[in-house]
Amino acid sequence: MAASREDILNTIESYVKSVAGGTVDDVLALYAPGATVEDPVGTDPRTTEESIREFYGIIEPLEQTAELGVVKIAAGTAAFNFSLTTHLGEQKVEISVIDVMTFDDDAKITSMKAIWGPEDMVTR
Amino acid sequence: MAASREDILNTIESYVKSVAGGTVDDVLALYAPGATVEDPVGTDPRTTEESIREFYGIIEPLEQTAELGVVKIAAGTAAFNFSLTTHLGEQKVEISVIDVMTFDDDAKITSMKAIWGPEDMVTR
Repeated sequence: MAASREDILNTIESYVKSVAGGTVDDVLALYAPGATVEDPVGTDPRTTEESIREFYGIIEPLEQTAELGVVKIAAGTAAFNFSLTTHLGEQKVEISVIDVMTFDDDAKITSMKAIWGPEDMVTR
Repeated sequence: MAASREDILNTIESYVKSVAGGTVDDVLALYAPGATVEDPVGTDPRTTEESIREFYGIIEPLEQTAELGVVKIAAGTAAFNFSLTTHLGEQKVEISVIDVMTFDDDAKITSMKAIWGPEDMVTR
């Protein structure tokens, strides 16, 4: 049976929280085996657990906060806007993206595509 | 050469405006030949001009206003949140969606997928 809207929403909320303040393992636990990550869209998709682990490993040690914006869900697909702020001493780097994800029946992420460009990254 | 961010943004703004207040021809002029429309995601994609024309024809006679929200663009792909309000006498029906679109080199839409569910439609 397809994942419910509620289960998908739970995964999204856990994802945003884990990306900002969790470990790579926390993030990877939300992904299904064989999942793909394309961030940003137009770059080579990461298709192995090793390469996805490497991707999230880069941001794991950073001090970050995240905010979830608009979320839309339809039939095992979701799109949502979220902002990730990295705190570098006095400076903040904020990136705001729309992620498009697909989910399996257990609400695990089977694919993630992040849509954003250079203009969506702001230093304050 | 791939369409620029500015050209894609122009198409999106024209799309939102045309869906709300334009004709079916206005909307269709923004699509590339062979484009597909899946609205909402999970339904059978419309793959012919005739079926896409039928889709927009349903809302053409309605009195509607639209508002564009968050827009993200990357490499010929865009995702954006928009709200479409239908004015039915005293009543308003508002639907808020995230559309994911791909574009050809002329910034014409090659595919549109709308992500939304029943909870994204509100009567006021």
